[in-house]
Amino acid sequence: MKKIITVVLLFISIGVFAQLEHVEPAFWWIGFKNPHLQLLVNGPQISKTDVSMHYPGVELTAVHKVTSPNYLFLDLVINSKIAKPGKFVIKFSKNGKTLDSYTYELKARTKGSSERQGFSSADVIYLLMPDRFANGTTKNDNVPSMIEKADRSSMNGRHGGDILGMEEHINYLKDLGVTAVWSTPLLENNNERTTYHGYAITNYYKIDPRFGTNQDYVQYVKDCHQNGIKVIMDMVANHCGINHWWMKDLPMPDWIHQFPSYTQSNFQMSTIQDPHASAIDKKIFLDGWFDRTMPDLNQNNPYLLTYLTQNAIWWIEYAGIDGIRMDTYPYCDKEPMAKWAKAIMTEYPHFNIMGETWLSNPVSVAYWQKGALNPDHFNSYLPTVMDFPLLQALEACFNEGNGWDTGMKRLYNSLAYDYLFPNTNNILVFAENHDTPRFNFIVKNNVDKFKLAMAFLMTTRGIPEIYYGSEIGMTGDKAKGDGDIRRDFPGGWPNDSINAFTAAGRTPLQNEYFNYLSKLLHWRQKEAVIQTGKLIHYIPQNNVYVYFRYNNKKTVMVILNGNNTEQTLNTARFSQCIKNFTRGTDVETGKTIQLQPSITIPKETAYILELK
Amino acid sequence: MKKIITVVLLFISIGVFAQLEHVEPAFWWIGFKNPHLQLLVNGPQISKTDVSMHYPGVELTAVHKVTSPNYLFLDLVINSKIAKPGKFVIKFSKNGKTLDSYTYELKARTKGSSERQGFSSADVIYLLMPDRFANGTTKNDNVPSMIEKADRSSMNGRHGGDILGMEEHINYLKDLGVTAVWSTPLLENNNERTTYHGYAITNYYKIDPRFGTNQDYVQYVKDCHQNGIKVIMDMVANHCGINHWWMKDLPMPDWIHQFPSYTQSNFQMSTIQDPHASAIDKKIFLDGWFDRTMPDLNQNNPYLLTYLTQNAIWWIEYAGIDGIRMDTYPYCDKEPMAKWAKAIMTEYPHFNIMGETWLSNPVSVAYWQKGALNPDHFNSYLPTVMDFPLLQALEACFNEGNGWDTGMKRLYNSLAYDYLFPNTNNILVFAENHDTPRFNFIVKNNVDKFKLAMAFLMTTRGIPEIYYGSEIGMTGDKAKGDGDIRRDFPGGWPNDSINAFTAAGRTPLQNEYFNYLSKLLHWRQKEAVIQTGKLIHYIPQNNVYVYFRYNNKKTVMVILNGNNTEQTLNTARFSQCIKNFTRGTDVETGKTIQLQPSITIPKETAYILELK
Repeated sequence: MKKIITVVLLFISIGVFAQLEHVEPAFWWIGFKNPHLQLLVNGPQISKTDVSMHYPGVELTAVHKVTSPNYLFLDLVINSKIAKPGKFVIKFSKNGKTLDSYTYELKARTKGSSERQGFSSADVIYLLMPDRFANGTTKNDNVPSMIEKADRSSMNGRHGGDILGMEEHINYLKDLGVTAVWSTPLLENNNERTTYHGYAITNYYKIDPRFGTNQDYVQYVKDCHQNGIKVIMDMVANHCGINHWWMKDLPMPDWIHQFPSYTQSNFQMSTIQDPHASAIDKKIFLDGWFDRTMPDLNQNNPYLLTYLTQNAIWWIEYAGIDGIRMDTYPYCDKEPMAKWAKAIMTEYPHFNIMGETWLSNPVSVAYWQKGALNPDHFNSYLPTVMDFPLLQALEACFNEGNGWDTGMKRLYNSLAYDYLFPNTNNILVFAENHDTPRFNFIVKNNVDKFKLAMAFLMTTRGIPEIYYGSEIGMTGDKAKGDGDIRRDFPGGWPNDSINAFTAAGRTPLQNEYFNYLSKLLHWRQKEAVIQTGKLIHYIPQNNVYVYFRYNNKKTVMVILNGNNTEQTLNTARFSQCIKNFTRGTDVETGKTIQLQPSITIPKETAYILELK
Repeated sequence: MKKIITVVLLFISIGVFAQLEHVEPAFWWIGFKNPHLQLLVNGPQISKTDVSMHYPGVELTAVHKVTSPNYLFLDLVINSKIAKPGKFVIKFSKNGKTLDSYTYELKARTKGSSERQGFSSADVIYLLMPDRFANGTTKNDNVPSMIEKADRSSMNGRHGGDILGMEEHINYLKDLGVTAVWSTPLLENNNERTTYHGYAITNYYKIDPRFGTNQDYVQYVKDCHQNGIKVIMDMVANHCGINHWWMKDLPMPDWIHQFPSYTQSNFQMSTIQDPHASAIDKKIFLDGWFDRTMPDLNQNNPYLLTYLTQNAIWWIEYAGIDGIRMDTYPYCDKEPMAKWAKAIMTEYPHFNIMGETWLSNPVSVAYWQKGALNPDHFNSYLPTVMDFPLLQALEACFNEGNGWDTGMKRLYNSLAYDYLFPNTNNILVFAENHDTPRFNFIVKNNVDKFKLAMAFLMTTRGIPEIYYGSEIGMTGDKAKGDGDIRRDFPGGWPNDSINAFTAAGRTPLQNEYFNYLSKLLHWRQKEAVIQTGKLIHYIPQNNVYVYFRYNNKKTVMVILNGNNTEQTLNTARFSQCIKNFTRGTDVETGKTIQLQPSITIPKETAYILELK
């Protein structure tokens, strides 16, 4: 009798429920250096089944059962010399009976995929928020399957921007002269509210339908490439969204970090290196949640780490992207994330990844760059870091006078720490992003100061990033809420009164911003001396910062006058760089400037001089 | 005829003038690891003579002529296995005729000399300015051979303090509880004005007669040692005084750094590491003069470097000092100074040297500590650096409220960079020195804040330094001039109305300062757990900073309440350190404090609890 009941229960629990709900990644490719692939398989009681598959060159080497009976992790080994692109069936059966199956496809990789050139200091990056950039179609503003609906009246609501909107303005980016676009995350964020920013992902393999489809994204990347623009995908490995499908039934308890009651991160990044940090402070920093809606993922869980690594590689290979921006980098467990970065860079040696290293001391930022000489011997394998210390300098230097460490001196002082960075070209330089006050707000909409800052960013070392809308003078006060620094781009919505995407639609002042920057960017595109040349700078005197970029073909002299008065510089001091040059042509005005014996520069002006 | 004139001229130029004026070092010792000794010999036309000497175990291996005919550098090699203590004659002759001679002595070293224990984190250092501390005798206030005379009415004048004054108050230091004294330089400063501070040395081998004699200094060190107090000598290798005897006739042009016209240092320390620094900025930083009265010495000149190295070893061996404080460390040429430090530490492996590393970023300070992991592979061999970033934190944290990075958080944040230091015990911690605003001025003479700061300095990691007079509440405003932070210690001069050197002479408030600190210092002397124990600290919450010092025998809990209101802390958070302890005894009050479940601490108070 007992035996019969068991059989009946078994039938109910397996025969009825063993149906696949998720197989991730849904497909894969042949030809990676790493032959291993681990499939996450999810479905009611799937762990009770036997798994089988047959395909030449592909071997199922392990089937891992975990805490939840509704998961299996399948280890496949793909021998790229034998396996051919094609499909095979993975069967899930019990007692010889197939309960469900999945047709797995191994695709051929696009030719040259592994050799793709990631974004670099040859590029200028345009950072945009898809929801706030352009609403290509209102049809997807509200989607039945997605909880949050559009509400353009709310600064925290979804405004309807989408991939089609981005697609329709690739030409605008090309006109502006940027060569890479970084959009904040486009993946599904099916949460209750404030989903427009995209950092609470509920499906790592799916574009949010309010932005478009996976295919739309692939098309967008293709079209960007055809216009000479690289695409950087914003990824989030530190946390998922509270409504991620796995949150109702985690594979294992340590898939995420859990506490007896809600515990927020203390955001004290220093605990990672601090030899005196208490264990509890360190744990809460790393394992505490970023927010109640963002469960903290445990990258030390090897299944999760493999999941995240494959997910990144999947998007690179599937969508053809040129780079990754990884959110809240130091909040993740650092050793597994180093493996993550190394795995990606092994498959794509010329790719680029930048981590959000929001730290105020250059030594703290440098810690996270690949090859940094860290006392704990940590190597992140992360190629690119973000220069938040330089951001702080830019936020302060235009609103104060000359001083021992104020004004232009801040820029000089910040770069003086470059000895700490193994690769100073791979440093993102920026005056703002989607989390900081708008630069135009900081300089009180002074267009001359905007030009000074742009002249600096486009000619110093590193990879410049500009934030959507600043090129037409957009402003925003972080103190009023994130929404204020993430306003809609004028012209991105039907019936917008101004269309700043076109010269004709822009006001004269908007054109002044746009034209200055556009001229500079188009010039920079051609100038290897700026992209990869060496830098020599001089201690600012009287709030005037002078530096040179040079290679064996060309020298460019940059003069930034941070004063509200004209300044005259004796140029004898710069003889190491001026050498036998006698004059310079200013990139903005085309004017010829004699270099000897002195140069007079108007107030709040940048000279970018090609030396002759 | 021509021959006769030559002979006559030769007779005039050598026979008459070849007389010794300087032989340095004047004597030496047998038994150093380094067998080499280089004598600087100076006298008119001395280079035209032949040098000879004979002494078993000592060989004259080279006689170097340099640019000036009035110098010779003699290389001796001393074989310590053969040479015995004693004297020998060095003859300077021409054509077989001895024109002058010098009786050189090789002394026996004091037993245990090389094994002396330098100052360490077991010590607390008292920094005093001899001219402003105590005037032991007015007889040396004015000395005929010295240009500047005493003028106590001027804040920049000499006030008459001397070694006898220091000698007479060794007991005071002992009562206070310090175990090391660092006086600003005592060597001759025979310049026109502002000579009281001692940093423009005109004779590297002679105590300024207005302070006393070399013998007085030797006696002072002996008497300090008998009272358990170590002595640290303040040295200056970066520059000499404009009236140094060699300035009228340099051995060679590059003995100092010279420019076509007076060139001051730009004080831009970052140029040392900055990969983008211009050559001229770097040169002016390193080679420019500190001041018109301070010629910049060229440590890259091997003769000068040997001179400085031998001078340091000479003072260690001659006076028996326990440590060196080296002025303006980063302004010297770093590679030769590393050799200097290494040479000293090779002879005295347990000695200590601290460099004045006045830099605002911990990574910049750490760069100068022996063994730092520097990208340029530079190793200073300097054991101890000064925590100027922590000074900045202390200068700010008591005058502001709680904040993300304000108040007590500044102390925590500063120590969080300790991962950069190879040896965190060898870091000088201080709230002020002779170049910074008086701490009591900064906290507006708030005795509670003084106690908080002292409680912190005496219990955190490192070597605490206190500045003379603060222990009786002395104040001083740097903005009024250096003289204001270097006021005379009350009671140090005959007829002073208050004698703060004695409890009876001190006001009740002065005794409150003194007694608090004295109790703390005497307690610290016995506590290995504070001197060398490990440190765990907790992110300050509500402007309360909690940390523990512990070793395998003892645990001390420190609570610093930076608020002007009482605070109650739930102690569950500290379980990693509290372990099974149930109560603590406060070092200041002797009160027993229960640890569970919470501790209430009065406003602006430090608890230093020995856990039981």
